Amino acid sequence: MENWQNIGRHSIKEARSRIDQLIHWTPVLRCSAINKLAGCRVFFKCENFQKVGAFKARGAANAVLKLNKAARENGVATHSSGNHAAALARAAAEAGIPAFIVMPETAPQIKKEAVREYGGQIFECAPNLSAREEGLREVVNRYGATFVPPYDHCDVIEGQATCAYEIFEEGLQPDILLAPVGGGGLLSGTALSSQFFSPETAVIGAEPTGADDARRSFMAGKRIPQENPDTIADGLLTSLGELNFDIISRYVSDILTADDGQIIAAMRLIYERMKIVIEPSCAVPLAVLLINKTLFKDKEVGIILSGGNVDLSRLPFR
Amino acid sequence: MENWQNIGRHSIKEARSRIDQLIHWTPVLRCSAINKLAGCRVFFKCENFQKVGAFKARGAANAVLKLNKAARENGVATHSSGNHAAALARAAAEAGIPAFIVMPETAPQIKKEAVREYGGQIFECAPNLSAREEGLREVVNRYGATFVPPYDHCDVIEGQATCAYEIFEEGLQPDILLAPVGGGGLLSGTALSSQFFSPETAVIGAEPTGADDARRSFMAGKRIPQENPDTIADGLLTSLGELNFDIISRYVSDILTADDGQIIAAMRLIYERMKIVIEPSCAVPLAVLLINKTLFKDKEVGIILSGGNVDLSRLPFR
Repeated sequence: MENWQNIGRHSIKEARSRIDQLIHWTPVLRCSAINKLAGCRVFFKCENFQKVGAFKARGAANAVLKLNKAARENGVATHSSGNHAAALARAAAEAGIPAFIVMPETAPQIKKEAVREYGGQIFECAPNLSAREEGLREVVNRYGATFVPPYDHCDVIEGQATCAYEIFEEGLQPDILLAPVGGGGLLSGTALSSQFFSPETAVIGAEPTGADDARRSFMAGKRIPQENPDTIADGLLTSLGELNFDIISRYVSDILTADDGQIIAAMRLIYERMKIVIEPSCAVPLAVLLINKTLFKDKEVGIILSGGNVDLSRLPFR
Repeated sequence: MENWQNIGRHSIKEARSRIDQLIHWTPVLRCSAINKLAGCRVFFKCENFQKVGAFKARGAANAVLKLNKAARENGVATHSSGNHAAALARAAAEAGIPAFIVMPETAPQIKKEAVREYGGQIFECAPNLSAREEGLREVVNRYGATFVPPYDHCDVIEGQATCAYEIFEEGLQPDILLAPVGGGGLLSGTALSSQFFSPETAVIGAEPTGADDARRSFMAGKRIPQENPDTIADGLLTSLGELNFDIISRYVSDILTADDGQIIAAMRLIYERMKIVIEPSCAVPLAVLLINKTLFKDKEVGIILSGGNVDLSRLPFR
């Protein structure tokens, strides 16, 4: 396991400066109708407005820009069917280096197009983890590219930590900060930033009931991999990473869950009241808040809206 | 016809101060992907983030707050099935006066709920213009309420003019400003503000092909009412108002149209690239821009996104 203890107050600030040319300082929005419904003061950190449409742009940019000159020449590689693939391809393109992306042949066409649009080279593989890992090994061996994993990696976590850093840097000091958890890149980064820049803020993870390995792992004190995840929150299907689990165990107060019906209701509320487009994954924190109102009553609560990449022809509203 | 010549530089500024407590100063957003596609520099004035989800909050607030004390006591009335109904009900509630809203019995449940939520009293009528006008007459006679029309009214136009005023007040001076046109409240207000605060800016109206009475009236030099409108842009079905036509004839450079397919494509682009929720009506300006690229080439173009009240279960994306 890498030593995440090197991520600190100073290194997160440095990471924010490093990636400044590649990412947006995303806005914070509030909505009086949602405050009224929730019984507390909520603000939303809008990573759906981030480059590539998700916070993933931060970690990928940080990892690419931290590569030394020799490593840069051979480019970067990853296996991913989601936002990390596009984020890495874009960060590599901005740095002028190649990106090799192993994607399951069943990945949505729109995700493949996003990677190609940023100049990433796609290598298709069978849609299972061992084929993806095998594909990645081949690409790394053939091109000497550096593997940048989607979440279980110090530079990626440090990059994702810049999101909560922006919140605190703006002078906001929420009582509670809620972030969704899948692999745990965003949640672990958020927990570290809170620890360094606003230690009074409690960080809580929000997870779909149908993929609740982070909650079960958190409770058991050891990683329990997710088997057969089943949820509309398609960005949160993966199991918690090793580094991520270690950080989350120490610095996160709790992990709460919501089921798909509750997630869709929260998602609808954000579309209807805030007039912004989000993916189902980032409605999970608001869903969790709305079904645990007493816990949040009269508090100042920050919610990180992780991304806005959703298939518009398949929105879950009836 | 009222004398709209009383609307001037000073009165628009005053209107903006008058309604300040009731409305948002809405943000201006840009999107590099859309700039690239459009071949010009576009910015979007986001009235979808406005109170009540549409620019209509401005005109209604201005009209209500300009009532004298005696008129206020008897409240306000209108007939509307759309955003103006909710906007007037809300403005009245904020001013502590009653609002009487005549709505066709076929109006969407969600629109009726919005009016009720703001404390408006609904009077249902048959779904045709004469029944609406008859219903309004009755309400006005019975309660002595003041009729606030949706667009053909000086105080309403002056209120809508505060939207473009905000653009210029922020220091933006687009070569072209595009606004959708239905009854013409927004377009006429936009044209007046441009005239007073940025006379070099050309104002162009954007209209659906399936309800193009404003374009036909503009060309003919006289009002030609819309018969059997047929377009997805449900906020732009009405015919151009009298005052609105007079102002538009003088100060608007052109009115361009787009068909429903082009409107839906532009709408999708805004959802996908900007991650914001808009109603079909306010995709018309971007649609018009994208099918007339040479006209806008390398220009700075402002687009007013008029509103975000859309039925999420019936989005036109396939």
